[in-house]
Amino acid sequence: MQIVKDYGPITGESIAEKLNLTRATLRPDLAILTMAGYLEARPRVGYFYTGKTGKQLFADKMKKMKVEDYQSIPVVVNENVSVYDAIVTMFLEDVGTLFVVDDESLLAGVLSRKDLLRASLGKQELTAIPVNIIMTRMPNIAVCYKDDPLIDVAEQLIEKQIDAMPVVRKTEKGYEVIGRITKTNITKAFVSLAKED
Amino acid sequence: MQIVKDYGPITGESIAEKLNLTRATLRPDLAILTMAGYLEARPRVGYFYTGKTGKQLFADKMKKMKVEDYQSIPVVVNENVSVYDAIVTMFLEDVGTLFVVDDESLLAGVLSRKDLLRASLGKQELTAIPVNIIMTRMPNIAVCYKDDPLIDVAEQLIEKQIDAMPVVRKTEKGYEVIGRITKTNITKAFVSLAKED
Repeated sequence: MQIVKDYGPITGESIAEKLNLTRATLRPDLAILTMAGYLEARPRVGYFYTGKTGKQLFADKMKKMKVEDYQSIPVVVNENVSVYDAIVTMFLEDVGTLFVVDDESLLAGVLSRKDLLRASLGKQELTAIPVNIIMTRMPNIAVCYKDDPLIDVAEQLIEKQIDAMPVVRKTEKGYEVIGRITKTNITKAFVSLAKED
Repeated sequence: MQIVKDYGPITGESIAEKLNLTRATLRPDLAILTMAGYLEARPRVGYFYTGKTGKQLFADKMKKMKVEDYQSIPVVVNENVSVYDAIVTMFLEDVGTLFVVDDESLLAGVLSRKDLLRASLGKQELTAIPVNIIMTRMPNIAVCYKDDPLIDVAEQLIEKQIDAMPVVRKTEKGYEVIGRITKTNITKAFVSLAKED
């Protein structure tokens, strides 16, 4: 690494010469340092030092974790269903957040367990209230896209103090809901980081 | 690294000799490789190769993240309070899980938003039902300790499909609740991993 720092870009041949080693002996080490991201190799140019620490390389790797690789299937209800039916759907599907869509299947709102629990404390008949009365509605909804880094979504969940975010596709008319990212997905991603062989 | 692999344990002096470098020139590189965990240094013995890959070293690092460094303050209610009062406490404290304790302040049960939402759908008056009727009760509660690796708790939250776990201290009579780990804490830990400078 010191040689590459001092003389890079430098060919493997030249590094071997300076170390009084053969190119073959050196090859596995250069491969490891390149794979780990400490060195970079360019054809016909040679090795150069990337200047990245292990922590930076790890942060780079985390930024490559994309929403689409960790998202779950979204559970949606129409904005005209009753609060009672929404609660039943939440139990049947065993999710903590429902996304509410309009008649064109475009994102209209979000319902959390907290929203539904608050409504259930009221004196009104739950079968008589449509969810669009109690939901958090557009444009006050944080959304994300399938190519977003998972870490950015995790940060937003913390910042905005929400449990889930819809993964959307933007159309001319509005957002189509194509996925769901929750703190459960983030927790699974956290576990997967430690489990990688 | 190749030299240490082949000849380790080997002193810094001897490595420098083999590379035709001075000990001083070599020192920063050996320090980096040691800090990163690829090499280990023992006084009066020298450097040896740990055989660990970057991924293994990262997994080691994650195992060192302890519950006590990421836990939140627990919110507890007595087992005799009403379901209505528990829901109000949940909103006032803005938490998703309450821990239920007996008159000796020992862990007796857990109440999730889901438990409370289910109860609120029933026909009974919520002010008339004590939480110990609807809570998940001991010994069916997963607990953790402040010295546990955070990653183990994250795995259990996923496996058992729960949102939170009490951090406890074991006494002769039972468990005292001293903290709370939720998927929010895990999500914060995930973000902190990427943010480290």
